[in-house]
Amino acid sequence: MAENRFPYLQLLRFTTSVFEKIGCNPTDAELAAKVLLSADLRGIDSHGVARLSGYVRLWEVKRVNANPNIKIIHETPSTAVIDGDGGLGLVVAPFAMKVAIEKAKNAGTGWVSVQNSNHFGIAGYHALMAVEQDMIGWAMTNASPLVAPTFSTERLLGTNPICVAVPAGEEAPFVADMATTTAANGKLEILQRKNERAPLGWVQDKYGNASVNPHELKSGGALLPLGGDREHGSHKGYALGAIVDIFSAVLSGANYGPWVPPFPAYVPMPEEQPGKGIGHFLGAMRIDAFRPADDFKLHMDKWIQRFKAATPIAGEERVIIPGEPEKEMETERMRTGIPLLPVVEEDLKFLAEKFLLNF
Amino acid sequence: MAENRFPYLQLLRFTTSVFEKIGCNPTDAELAAKVLLSADLRGIDSHGVARLSGYVRLWEVKRVNANPNIKIIHETPSTAVIDGDGGLGLVVAPFAMKVAIEKAKNAGTGWVSVQNSNHFGIAGYHALMAVEQDMIGWAMTNASPLVAPTFSTERLLGTNPICVAVPAGEEAPFVADMATTTAANGKLEILQRKNERAPLGWVQDKYGNASVNPHELKSGGALLPLGGDREHGSHKGYALGAIVDIFSAVLSGANYGPWVPPFPAYVPMPEEQPGKGIGHFLGAMRIDAFRPADDFKLHMDKWIQRFKAATPIAGEERVIIPGEPEKEMETERMRTGIPLLPVVEEDLKFLAEKFLLNF
Repeated sequence: MAENRFPYLQLLRFTTSVFEKIGCNPTDAELAAKVLLSADLRGIDSHGVARLSGYVRLWEVKRVNANPNIKIIHETPSTAVIDGDGGLGLVVAPFAMKVAIEKAKNAGTGWVSVQNSNHFGIAGYHALMAVEQDMIGWAMTNASPLVAPTFSTERLLGTNPICVAVPAGEEAPFVADMATTTAANGKLEILQRKNERAPLGWVQDKYGNASVNPHELKSGGALLPLGGDREHGSHKGYALGAIVDIFSAVLSGANYGPWVPPFPAYVPMPEEQPGKGIGHFLGAMRIDAFRPADDFKLHMDKWIQRFKAATPIAGEERVIIPGEPEKEMETERMRTGIPLLPVVEEDLKFLAEKFLLNF
Repeated sequence: MAENRFPYLQLLRFTTSVFEKIGCNPTDAELAAKVLLSADLRGIDSHGVARLSGYVRLWEVKRVNANPNIKIIHETPSTAVIDGDGGLGLVVAPFAMKVAIEKAKNAGTGWVSVQNSNHFGIAGYHALMAVEQDMIGWAMTNASPLVAPTFSTERLLGTNPICVAVPAGEEAPFVADMATTTAANGKLEILQRKNERAPLGWVQDKYGNASVNPHELKSGGALLPLGGDREHGSHKGYALGAIVDIFSAVLSGANYGPWVPPFPAYVPMPEEQPGKGIGHFLGAMRIDAFRPADDFKLHMDKWIQRFKAATPIAGEERVIIPGEPEKEMETERMRTGIPLLPVVEEDLKFLAEKFLLNF
């Protein structure tokens, strides 16, 4: 099916209006829309407007508070814990990153663990807020359990992404933004739609057997940690996902492991709640708390240029710097518009009708 | 060949004496020996006394300074950069971690990037220093280039380990200590000795083709980033290795990428030196800078117990908590001694002769 392209500004205005309709104030609504659409711009379509109706449904079942009183509940010179008051992660996480950046201005670094939040869109948006201030940015979040740790048949971790964004000089920033699984859930969804096989190492069935069926999660299967199986280092991917869970939730007082609230509003909440909402972890490190920013950027450029110049494997163009493809996509989609799958376009039209908006 | 076992204290005394013979003061010599042997105790044999003669050879070619003037060259309330003055990483890294811990006491967290150092043994030792203070510990180091980034035929990264160590209550600490490659170089060396095939995804040949030959590195091949190939997420392992390189070296002013000095003393130094020595990155985060330590530990115990209780895959005992096998090994080897391969035993006897020591 052909995809139609929509100008960024049209989608931004529409998404902002939807967030206003569920009760966000205009500033929060525009911020939430910007964060959400940064995913579409960067080509991470699974985390963009495709999820807008999902956020609306969470609000409908009262799992999202459109007017949160976000506040710092504990702090030291370089740390804070924030209670998101059940707000949209799209609004709570930028608030938390601003706190991390302010801490870093004074103490060199700032680290903020967040409880009582919801899904925050792509980690990259938040980490890049720090880069604009000549800081290294960190962003992590836990998420609904879809991933089985090594040797487990049960799903105990989310795809728990880690993003680290590092400023450079002439070169674009280095932005590693990755699920701690072999493949992000969005990639699996693409295979589901096409009814194509998944590579071995992406999913397992409900007994923990290797599987190539992209629909495995619907019958009790699980996504696999980066590495895929023990022989290929899945215990490392599992450990990375665990670190994200601990930093985002055990440190803040959010829910962790199998008790993280699900994103789909129709999935019942876990019976037990050892914490509040879902958790994030944001960090900002001032470059000049280590060395002069200009020196650092000169060496980052040299690092990037050396990696780009590596002799490539036959058939491959060259080594890619993390964040490069997303940056190129952003430039292109700002110019030519954001392509939406017909099903996503339908979803937005449904929202337009529901809220009496133009789309 | 049968392995003999040696009591920990015998190896500690001997190793301390060797470090004294190369000119370390008694305090540094004992510290270096403790760090080195913590690898043998924890079962990471490739990083323990097996490397002692390697450190001696680096000293012989004047690549290690036995009496370094380790100093802070820049600092803020939560950060510092340390010049290791060419000292043993085994001594420089604990110095740096102490600085990180002191910073954390005052500012909530402490982050130290280190230049002009050498190999620091296992990352776990350093990260666990923080755990003893009710802090989360981080340790990373870059290393000689053995790893090809995704799509590269060239080796541009070390096995660049990341360790995150987290205190718990009744349970043992969570300690993820991992090379950012599919398999650590030590595992490949085991296959080399046994002349067995490596699983696909561990190494590539000099053209970048998948290979099962564990000797591939001797003919221009490379270790592969965690993930193994692009389809299984090797770009994520590459990004993790890159993050370690940037934090350890671009942030501190050490050498990075292909310019990191080699561990074997017979390998010539890279022609270009964009920085000084090799680099490390150490971090300490006070738990109670986020929430009361007792609350945190209660939830860490709950986290750990839930993961241990997960229904295992048929044929597997249960989900392993990162750091568990190393902790068990440590208890056992403290009791029954440390087994040494005959070749390692020979190596130590050679050092004993050289320095007129008893072994």
